Amino acid sequence: MNDLTGKPVYLDHAATTPMLPAAIEAMTRHLSEVGNPSSLHASGRRARRVVEEARETIAGAMSCRPGDVVFTSGGTEADNLALKGAFWSRHQADPRRRRILSTAVEHHAVLDPLMWLAEEVDAEVELLPVDRYGRLEVEALRTSIERDPGSVALVSVMWANNEVGTLQPVDEVVALASRHGIPVHTDAVQAVGNVPVDFAASGVDMLTLTGHKVGGPFGVGALVVRRELEVTAMLHGGGQERDIRSGTLDAPAIAGFAAAVEAAVKGQPEHAERIAVLRDRLVADVRRVVPDAVANGHPTLRLPGNAHLRFPGCAGDSLLMLLDARDIECSTGSACSAGIAQPSHVLIAMGMDEEDALSSLRFSLGHTSTDADVDALAAAIGPCVDRARASRQPVAR
Amino acid sequence: MNDLTGKPVYLDHAATTPMLPAAIEAMTRHLSEVGNPSSLHASGRRARRVVEEARETIAGAMSCRPGDVVFTSGGTEADNLALKGAFWSRHQADPRRRRILSTAVEHHAVLDPLMWLAEEVDAEVELLPVDRYGRLEVEALRTSIERDPGSVALVSVMWANNEVGTLQPVDEVVALASRHGIPVHTDAVQAVGNVPVDFAASGVDMLTLTGHKVGGPFGVGALVVRRELEVTAMLHGGGQERDIRSGTLDAPAIAGFAAAVEAAVKGQPEHAERIAVLRDRLVADVRRVVPDAVANGHPTLRLPGNAHLRFPGCAGDSLLMLLDARDIECSTGSACSAGIAQPSHVLIAMGMDEEDALSSLRFSLGHTSTDADVDALAAAIGPCVDRARASRQPVAR
Repeated sequence: MNDLTGKPVYLDHAATTPMLPAAIEAMTRHLSEVGNPSSLHASGRRARRVVEEARETIAGAMSCRPGDVVFTSGGTEADNLALKGAFWSRHQADPRRRRILSTAVEHHAVLDPLMWLAEEVDAEVELLPVDRYGRLEVEALRTSIERDPGSVALVSVMWANNEVGTLQPVDEVVALASRHGIPVHTDAVQAVGNVPVDFAASGVDMLTLTGHKVGGPFGVGALVVRRELEVTAMLHGGGQERDIRSGTLDAPAIAGFAAAVEAAVKGQPEHAERIAVLRDRLVADVRRVVPDAVANGHPTLRLPGNAHLRFPGCAGDSLLMLLDARDIECSTGSACSAGIAQPSHVLIAMGMDEEDALSSLRFSLGHTSTDADVDALAAAIGPCVDRARASRQPVAR
Repeated sequence: MNDLTGKPVYLDHAATTPMLPAAIEAMTRHLSEVGNPSSLHASGRRARRVVEEARETIAGAMSCRPGDVVFTSGGTEADNLALKGAFWSRHQADPRRRRILSTAVEHHAVLDPLMWLAEEVDAEVELLPVDRYGRLEVEALRTSIERDPGSVALVSVMWANNEVGTLQPVDEVVALASRHGIPVHTDAVQAVGNVPVDFAASGVDMLTLTGHKVGGPFGVGALVVRRELEVTAMLHGGGQERDIRSGTLDAPAIAGFAAAVEAAVKGQPEHAERIAVLRDRLVADVRRVVPDAVANGHPTLRLPGNAHLRFPGCAGDSLLMLLDARDIECSTGSACSAGIAQPSHVLIAMGMDEEDALSSLRFSLGHTSTDADVDALAAAIGPCVDRARASRQPVAR
């Protein structure tokens, strides 16, 4: 419990972060207005203006053209659209293009569409290895591309890992792929607002972002996609969003999303500096109490708000519950696979054994995080770890 | 302009209807709360409770089991999921099942996925004829099914037509299909809250509904699908919604959606009675001023709030703009294909020629509609029709 607010100590901003007041305001302002952005009358045109102004705001923040922004229902849909849409289009243009190169540490919203493409649409998916920090082995990508560049439909490498926080070498990926005209997608859901993300400068062809990770609402996100890249639609219907994504445009949520992206990107440098200091103190304070705790992920090339710690001899899920009983909220991995007691595919790909992988927790800081949150964790972690260790059952191997 | 409110006279509730105060309240209450419904800690469990209570509310209102409700980003996604998901699953179970039977008057969110399935996935789509009121020729469906029942993957027939308001004989469709174990999908987006819709009693296997047509928010909807029917996922990722629909659950919008569905279904009988009277007066008042105006769609088996009128000698889009200039808002057809000067596929399927089809307007009433709205239309329609007729260019045939 945070003594000042009476609320739980929320250290799970990577799962979802509270909406910014500006985003709530932008969204609620439009909730009581009527108008389908596809309608021709004044109310429809007003709603359409809300959407197009939001599109321009996001384009300004992400350094892309407004026409590159395709609104979706969130990150999962944007990832699915990017992978399936670009694969279908590139494969159709040249049936030799069957390979999709990605990494072993992607989010399930990337991995699972890739598995589907491999099973159902005859794609050949290669999940490239990462180093012990979770960072893509660029040489493996180079070798894989150069083996047969003409057979690569696309490359997808996340900007920053959602579990351990490691940043990926997106610039090197783009340099390798662009030499052969291969489009690159990046899931930047965790990166936007936390590290600088410039679509134009990055050279990627497609980029996923989502509202609820940047202080905007759930249920809205975007795929930024260079208009030159053809992407086959996944949702068919009214032909909205350049016919790439049909479905009535959610003007209020889109307005809230744009307000959040604008604020998050504008405030990114100060925000990152502040929460990196807080995160470093969190790691130091926890390790003072639990000296054998080990920090996972890259030591420097990482998200500023992410601390991913292994507690030897603890079951991560028990520790999570013990902390939760003290009103401290964190995660054992991606929220999406929470509830499934499986070792994280990210940690396994980093070379960890199953037992070590199951004894890790993610603490992720965000815009509402304070010193008091870190103090509360530092006060609680010792007894919780002791208890988790005492109750530990040997892991079945 | 409505003299009382100073707002436009909104006669386009079929495109989108204003949010109910209860839905705004339910939604905004959760906007400032944090918690991903997939997270294991207290904030996550709280968000999950919001979602599950909403699921129960919707199940109660729709007469289905809570486990049958699959939340989506709206009607378009629910229709795509129903058609593609059920086709994939039924076709995979038996490759002979290649046929999808539907009607020529479906919404684009049904027609366009069907075209995609025909082009890309080897489905054989039959769009069955309708009568001059837009109502499915049931005998055509019977003949088509009985020609070779084992080859039918599924049947999709909308509950009520979004343009002309005609109700479809869903009970007869179910009776014919169920005899052969063929699943039935219905797009009930326009029906819920306007006519009685009971999932269990209807016997359909899948039903689409969406938030913004019932007084809930944009960006959220549901596919109600009997758990016994296997539906292949379209969005892959975290495995939410029984693995049928991955993506972070939008707890605030889902809460608003449930509040709207509950209120709309509960108030349906009184609402329908009230707006049917208003709609009948609208038609009578317009025809008093424009005696040759013709009402389209079924005279009795129709949505209570829908008036679809043909104004001989007028271009519908000109008339729409002339009315809009007087702050009266209506539609030439589905908002989704607005802006495209093509005759409505619905009216063409009803046997109208292109010129007649292009001279029709849809006026749709909803929960905020008043006598003053009808008075305003009755006062404006005469001069607008005169002007539209005077400016009419011959239609290129």
